[in-house]
Amino acid sequence: MPISEFDLIRRFLQQATAQREDVVLGIGDDCALLDVPAGRQLAVSMDTLVEGRHFAPGADPVALGYKALAVNLSDLAAMGAEPAWATLALTLPGADTAWLESFMTGFGALAASHGLQLVGGDTTRGPLSITVQVHGFVDADAVLRRDAARPGDRVYASGTIGDAALALALGRQPGVEVPVELQLRLDRPTPRVALGRELAGRAHAAIDVSDGLVADLGHVCAASAVAATIELARIPVSATARGYLERFGWQPVLAGGDDYELLFCVPAEIEATLIGHCRALGHEISRIGLVEAGTGIVLVYPDGRMSREVPAGFDHFADA
Amino acid sequence: MPISEFDLIRRFLQQATAQREDVVLGIGDDCALLDVPAGRQLAVSMDTLVEGRHFAPGADPVALGYKALAVNLSDLAAMGAEPAWATLALTLPGADTAWLESFMTGFGALAASHGLQLVGGDTTRGPLSITVQVHGFVDADAVLRRDAARPGDRVYASGTIGDAALALALGRQPGVEVPVELQLRLDRPTPRVALGRELAGRAHAAIDVSDGLVADLGHVCAASAVAATIELARIPVSATARGYLERFGWQPVLAGGDDYELLFCVPAEIEATLIGHCRALGHEISRIGLVEAGTGIVLVYPDGRMSREVPAGFDHFADA
Repeated sequence: MPISEFDLIRRFLQQATAQREDVVLGIGDDCALLDVPAGRQLAVSMDTLVEGRHFAPGADPVALGYKALAVNLSDLAAMGAEPAWATLALTLPGADTAWLESFMTGFGALAASHGLQLVGGDTTRGPLSITVQVHGFVDADAVLRRDAARPGDRVYASGTIGDAALALALGRQPGVEVPVELQLRLDRPTPRVALGRELAGRAHAAIDVSDGLVADLGHVCAASAVAATIELARIPVSATARGYLERFGWQPVLAGGDDYELLFCVPAEIEATLIGHCRALGHEISRIGLVEAGTGIVLVYPDGRMSREVPAGFDHFADA
Repeated sequence: MPISEFDLIRRFLQQATAQREDVVLGIGDDCALLDVPAGRQLAVSMDTLVEGRHFAPGADPVALGYKALAVNLSDLAAMGAEPAWATLALTLPGADTAWLESFMTGFGALAASHGLQLVGGDTTRGPLSITVQVHGFVDADAVLRRDAARPGDRVYASGTIGDAALALALGRQPGVEVPVELQLRLDRPTPRVALGRELAGRAHAAIDVSDGLVADLGHVCAASAVAATIELARIPVSATARGYLERFGWQPVLAGGDDYELLFCVPAEIEATLIGHCRALGHEISRIGLVEAGTGIVLVYPDGRMSREVPAGFDHFADA
């Protein structure tokens, strides 16, 4: 496919995202040139989505464009960063203009809504694969790191947990119709950027739920050298997902991943103020547990039973 | 392949590159956190290499690790930027530790020699593909853009041109042994970072030869709204490549690409000083032509014949 065609597409895509004054030079030279605000740190994250691995062949390109950016924005959210720029490496089997326009629609709308500009990247031919890098700003003294949880912190989660994993699992069962509200949570996860920025400098630690609630909270505990107890009855589960709990058990909620909600640890002394403030801004957040001295994660089931093991038996998505 | 294994590999790879004080937080959190020096601009570039497209199945992983970084460093060189950080998105068919260690050897050695630290990325399973983003610094008033060539500027090229294209073409002919000095120019291109930094703030415009000499100089001319005349007899061609000119004609030199040498435009009034300075530092550079008013590129053959067309007949690599 001629380079000029790709160039045109990229220029079109750049137009579809925000136009920022800190972009000295965007797409079209050997490098993009960017101005980072004085005194702020640059936060960067890169994620790849591969056809057949992260999405099925024939997946809706609008949703793919959205999701490829959303999972990266979620990483900025988990650091409390302000989104600024993105780069995009697209590997495509061929020049399918309709596909690309749809992809751009999903990518561009989400970018524009976060004030983010596409500034560069690469377009090559090959098996379908999408790599996005996002760039944002944080203040050095107001960044949400994994290693800053402290005993006594309250563990909170945003939104609802387990919907995306259920959509993925149900979608793999022949003849099963996936409830649209679950499918949307898988295809259109909401990066919690605004919440992350409220938490920055206030919460002690944060992470986004990509590997699964227990695994991701485990990353925080390991990095912070602390333990945590989670009360399963407090985990926010959507009404739709709740209907599947009896059939699938707790695994989709505890190990499902792909929700891109935030888990964060709030010091007790500011809990009332911070949580009240966030809720007043419209953020749905739920207290699900407590950080303690020690190592590992203890799960407290609704019947009072305690366990350090995530239940098995729902492994379809463990390889997703 | 378990995430932990990839994590270990990435940490190993990070250790193999430079360790920089401006990396506040490297691999291991949701984002890397980086300090851009006050008053300098950030230059970023991203390139993807896909198996079967940019390299053959079974290609030497040491050379791949080197080249994936080298082609990106070449983009920093073409802007006159100082390399700082890289991110790496690796998509691999499976967990082949020996392959990865070899890849790391090539990537890490080149990174370390340029004081560059790997700060993040993603590792996924799928068809082999490598995306690298490099990040460097430039001074706002000393950046080499494509759009700054002016009539009267002298056009220079670094190194030798056409070797990589010849290696690629010869390698595709059954039973032909590719001279090692050509193969090395294809597999181990030297990013001209040090030269780019000498040219920054002095030369008017620069670009690296990735699409081909005429195509890349054409990008400069189009962006700068100027024309250029190239004297073919002045183009630096290696002794080995010269031996193939009669058989293949000028196309490998004019359209081959993949050399990752710099083309740059020097104002007449500083030509003697700048070129003398660069040569004193050991940079091999050759004057090949002149920037003029107008549009397009005129080729002057050794016999005095002039043409605006790149000769056809050697198209094997046009699709590379």
